[in-house]
Amino acid sequence: MNAISLTNEKTDALISISEIFGPTIQGEGALIGTQTVFVRTGGCDYRCSWCDTGYAVLPEFEDQWQAMNAELVMLEIETLSSNKPLWITLSGGNPAQQDLAELITLGQTKGYKFSMETQGSIAKPWFALLDQLTLSPKPPSTGMSFKKRGLDRCLDACESLENVSLKFVVADEEDLLWSKTVAEQYPQLPCFVQPCNTSAKLEDHSSGDGKNIASEAQAIPIDQQKQMLWLIEAVQKLDWNEARVLPQLHTWLWGDKIGV
Amino acid sequence: MNAISLTNEKTDALISISEIFGPTIQGEGALIGTQTVFVRTGGCDYRCSWCDTGYAVLPEFEDQWQAMNAELVMLEIETLSSNKPLWITLSGGNPAQQDLAELITLGQTKGYKFSMETQGSIAKPWFALLDQLTLSPKPPSTGMSFKKRGLDRCLDACESLENVSLKFVVADEEDLLWSKTVAEQYPQLPCFVQPCNTSAKLEDHSSGDGKNIASEAQAIPIDQQKQMLWLIEAVQKLDWNEARVLPQLHTWLWGDKIGV
Repeated sequence: MNAISLTNEKTDALISISEIFGPTIQGEGALIGTQTVFVRTGGCDYRCSWCDTGYAVLPEFEDQWQAMNAELVMLEIETLSSNKPLWITLSGGNPAQQDLAELITLGQTKGYKFSMETQGSIAKPWFALLDQLTLSPKPPSTGMSFKKRGLDRCLDACESLENVSLKFVVADEEDLLWSKTVAEQYPQLPCFVQPCNTSAKLEDHSSGDGKNIASEAQAIPIDQQKQMLWLIEAVQKLDWNEARVLPQLHTWLWGDKIGV
Repeated sequence: MNAISLTNEKTDALISISEIFGPTIQGEGALIGTQTVFVRTGGCDYRCSWCDTGYAVLPEFEDQWQAMNAELVMLEIETLSSNKPLWITLSGGNPAQQDLAELITLGQTKGYKFSMETQGSIAKPWFALLDQLTLSPKPPSTGMSFKKRGLDRCLDACESLENVSLKFVVADEEDLLWSKTVAEQYPQLPCFVQPCNTSAKLEDHSSGDGKNIASEAQAIPIDQQKQMLWLIEAVQKLDWNEARVLPQLHTWLWGDKIGV
């Protein structure tokens, strides 16, 4: 994959934007604690049972999304960050649905660095431009089915795997076992596991037949501190030595108000 | 510095051990969330005003420390970790006072990896054997004076700087400004800042004249969540873009009981 050909493209492609906010700190994963502006794109190919950003996923929120070109997105980021070249975190929805090549190239010329978070279902050539990529395969409790080929294509699209990591959001024991099995197929990637912040979701997200999907399995406790203690112990019991167990800092610091 | 010559040394040097515990997760810094066993050595060349491990520092606790050779320390680690080759975190006190070459070499042959946390006042040739090193220069509120030459010598002793980072524990605004100034002299090193867990210390650690050293400056709030919010905002106000702001996870998860 040739990154040069990407950087010369100027397509004025429009990006579906749900929200741009920050600067704040990245609350999870490989860059936890890093100062960043978040760009949340609108639209997703998944419908996870406990999704905490329905407003960036579901079609009924489409009228709240704004179609913006790369220049306009960067202008907003520069305003928010007072032109300080921070990290920019691309999240969603699934940002891989968009064409973000121009945004990344433009931001990088201004000194910004780009991290992206995606479930790994859609691969794009411009992944090669990213400074960091978190692939977050969705476990059974989401109700989504995992396609290894999709994840492999995402990895193939990367310039190198040096700054790529896996992140698993775990709602129950079954999720954890599944995550370990997937992670073991990618021993070259650092692996982060975190509790699913299920507090609001267990009430909000029911499957069509009225059953609560996430609570069908043995759900982990709702309080994040208890979730962490459960997860640390569970990971140890499984001898999953490589997994790094992290909380969602933003949930702890700001509650559900700023879910990123 | 020649690592080979180190690995062939067998000195049966005794290590002053305050405690060995785990496995648990690393609660702070570059390896936050990583599963690890902690080896806390006894003895320190510093007397930080808000030190939270006086029992591993002060001479009056010496009779609680145990002189152990590398084999015995590894035996204890292997028992605790059920022979799972986790990370081993060397902490103190100041572990750089000890001769840890043999322990590191022995552990590495068994698949364990070694991380160390030290203030950067003492450099040893065996730093070159470490898999990760966190240098934690002590800010003004500790009452200790910073010697740049000591820190530089620690860096010189490392095989490479790839897995070396700085960590600043910040108790107040003055500490934060000082930390930024020091960090700017080492732009090649990742930099982590974290609030000082002052809850117990503000009462316990008074200077000789009865004044509380940490509270002389504008002390940051004691509650860790509030400390984090203060620190994130303060770091942003200083345009300290490179700093990663992290909490002490272990304090949040287990309280002061397991201070690591």
